[in-house]
Amino acid sequence: MILALAGGVGGARLANGLARVLTPGELTVAVNIGDDFTHLGLPICPDIDTVTYTLAGRNNHELGWGIAGESWAFMDELRALGGPDWFNLGDRDLAKHMLRGEWLRQGQSLSQVTTELARRQGIPQVIVPMSDEPVRTVVLTDEGELPFQDYFVRRRCEPRFLSIRFDGAASANISPGLQSALADPGLEAIVVCPSNPVLSIGPFLSVPSILDALHSAKVPRVAVSPFIGGDAVKGPAAKIMRELGEQPGAACLVRYYCGIIDAVLCDHEDPAAGKVIDGMAFHATDTLMKDEADQQRLATEVLALARTLP
Amino acid sequence: MILALAGGVGGARLANGLARVLTPGELTVAVNIGDDFTHLGLPICPDIDTVTYTLAGRNNHELGWGIAGESWAFMDELRALGGPDWFNLGDRDLAKHMLRGEWLRQGQSLSQVTTELARRQGIPQVIVPMSDEPVRTVVLTDEGELPFQDYFVRRRCEPRFLSIRFDGAASANISPGLQSALADPGLEAIVVCPSNPVLSIGPFLSVPSILDALHSAKVPRVAVSPFIGGDAVKGPAAKIMRELGEQPGAACLVRYYCGIIDAVLCDHEDPAAGKVIDGMAFHATDTLMKDEADQQRLATEVLALARTLP
Repeated sequence: MILALAGGVGGARLANGLARVLTPGELTVAVNIGDDFTHLGLPICPDIDTVTYTLAGRNNHELGWGIAGESWAFMDELRALGGPDWFNLGDRDLAKHMLRGEWLRQGQSLSQVTTELARRQGIPQVIVPMSDEPVRTVVLTDEGELPFQDYFVRRRCEPRFLSIRFDGAASANISPGLQSALADPGLEAIVVCPSNPVLSIGPFLSVPSILDALHSAKVPRVAVSPFIGGDAVKGPAAKIMRELGEQPGAACLVRYYCGIIDAVLCDHEDPAAGKVIDGMAFHATDTLMKDEADQQRLATEVLALARTLP
Repeated sequence: MILALAGGVGGARLANGLARVLTPGELTVAVNIGDDFTHLGLPICPDIDTVTYTLAGRNNHELGWGIAGESWAFMDELRALGGPDWFNLGDRDLAKHMLRGEWLRQGQSLSQVTTELARRQGIPQVIVPMSDEPVRTVVLTDEGELPFQDYFVRRRCEPRFLSIRFDGAASANISPGLQSALADPGLEAIVVCPSNPVLSIGPFLSVPSILDALHSAKVPRVAVSPFIGGDAVKGPAAKIMRELGEQPGAACLVRYYCGIIDAVLCDHEDPAAGKVIDGMAFHATDTLMKDEADQQRLATEVLALARTLP
């Protein structure tokens, strides 16, 4: 059994590669909830949705989020009524947010809701939130504190990133699905997907019981770097790294993933490729995932790397 | 100034006729809220929406409810996810339900929300709910008690109607807008629109402060009968009347509107046409409103009738 930790698009792509090369029962994908927020009364879980739509083969390639073939009549009307239009909600996408809200109000946990929505979209793999309790990312910027989606969507990551806070993390618990995957005697490896180390994986590490479990896991733990050629394939990871005084590249993962990974798979072009830095080996391959064939190849390579580790 | 009490489609049509023949400041439309309910977390106000869309010239003529040119991607997806699909929510319509919910959660009253949504749709007339407190219609049928929308939409009014209850009515208050219209020294007449007397106007009369105010109003009060030729133009009014042991026709309004109206305008074809029953005069005209010209003509006639009353 393989456990993958995933954030948004990059994480969803590698998770999909793993889903294609493993049998369904062999994969658990635990997903970041730091980006989650409530909008117009709807519980929005962007990373869970990106992973779910990707594994269902329904993700919108053009947008990088949401459902393929989406329509926007709701947003047109919301805009005409002068409603808040900075966060896009597709007509089809709304159905899932609405059902999620209904089930949460009925007392189901986020794990139960996530499992059920994945099942109803025909996904045989296990997708779980990192926690059933809210953990909310707040970015401290040169324009003040911004809830994550205000920073990410409304302000398009333009304010300068100073630091980050994960509200609720201290009192949040590891989700039952993530806990049981980590405790599974059949667990063979943990894969940290090529997601933003600060925004997407940071929330996992902010929850004490998740950090502890990852620290003490007795299986190979491999991270795939989200950086290629000093930049991120998608999203603001490189900009944030520079604002934190870092070189955007695989080497910075040594600090962000200290004690929770054993090796890194990075791009051939990365300055760390083939090196050992602070005792961490950086294995090199082509990490760009343009299509599902790339996703499967990278998944196969990260599993092969994990098998070489003690 | 004219005050119209309205329920769904018939009420909205006459209200629209009144809106067309009066200057904007001369009309207040008070609307039934007994049909309101919460669905998937959204506060749905079917009659307020029908009146609003009709006065905005946006009503869907084919369906008889909702917005013209509506699309249904949300419902398609909701159905695909196995969500509750018995109540249709159009993609555009959702925007208004969502904003209403957001504003109610922020502490606005239903009156404030209704006024603001009408304003944003360019409606210069005053549209107010009958009350800001919830009044919820429950129908007692031969299959047991059914919340209104379960009876009306889910069960298509098929169960036999035995009696009706308006939960919350005893503690609900007349809305500020309806109260100020009734107290307005410029009030010239009250028009009870051709709405279902039991389902659409019944909720008004179930609120003590509304019933009192209508009873003691010192202006002409005229009802337009919703029945034509022993049937209702639309909706279940005739079926309900028969199940209550009544002949569906204008004459039954004497009992339902006892003490709150002074005259009835009914269809030429109605058995009561031209008669006086229990002291109530039934004036006859063509009450069918096929288009806006009919709505204006009927509005003009009901205003003319009101002016003949003491």
